[in-house]
Amino acid sequence: MPELAFEDFTPGRVFDLGTITIDADEMVEFARRFDPQPFHLDEQAGKESIFGQLAASGWFTSSLWMRAYVDHVLSRATALGSPGGEEISWPAPVFAGDELAASLEILEARRSRSRPEMGLVKLGARMHRGETVVYRATFTGMFGVREP
Amino acid sequence: MPELAFEDFTPGRVFDLGTITIDADEMVEFARRFDPQPFHLDEQAGKESIFGQLAASGWFTSSLWMRAYVDHVLSRATALGSPGGEEISWPAPVFAGDELAASLEILEARRSRSRPEMGLVKLGARMHRGETVVYRATFTGMFGVREP
Repeated sequence: MPELAFEDFTPGRVFDLGTITIDADEMVEFARRFDPQPFHLDEQAGKESIFGQLAASGWFTSSLWMRAYVDHVLSRATALGSPGGEEISWPAPVFAGDELAASLEILEARRSRSRPEMGLVKLGARMHRGETVVYRATFTGMFGVREP
Repeated sequence: MPELAFEDFTPGRVFDLGTITIDADEMVEFARRFDPQPFHLDEQAGKESIFGQLAASGWFTSSLWMRAYVDHVLSRATALGSPGGEEISWPAPVFAGDELAASLEILEARRSRSRPEMGLVKLGARMHRGETVVYRATFTGMFGVREP
């Protein structure tokens, strides 16, 4: 049995997911494949955009948070996937070289009525650069229970 | 001026974003970097999971939809980025070889009060395999207006 089961995801608990440094090449490579808008690809277009400089695709930011979540939590948990979420927000742009602190807060937890061997956990994702929040999301995770 | 400005995103309008085929290698490569959970990496773990077979990371699905949106809409629009969304949902798993039809529906549109040269458009994203919806999201796009 993994270390973390449904019972361990108690509302209010916060998991530190470490710090992520934004690699300039990977940031642009991701945008070229998945989000090739000029302000995600080109320095000059970034400067002329609402972001003020070349900025990461929000999906790159989301994906990096996911990786931190897998490394620090899901890899040692009874994780059963996610049906989705209720909020996804990129309140400030992310730039190459940024050091982003990632965290997870447990917002709610309840056993599944239809599948009692499983629980549904409402998760609050966050990443920030200094005092600036750059990513916020609320979604649901499904976890196996320790004691059926 | 690009072909599509804020004024063109009228509620009810639907954009066909074409069809996407899920490449098995890229699906696993994405998971290895951003979402290395066993059911996204390994056939056998996929079979034993809630998904019934090796399944794509939801973030890969979201990123593929984004690319289709850029190719079919944003590349010919006065696109100014997105602050985020209100819903993101992966109601059914995505598998290697899937042919997914992508679309965008315009849900709401209003001019920004603080920045009248810009409008905010509420967008409904969707992808489906046959009659099964595999991705649904609602988010906001910012677009430059044609006539200030």
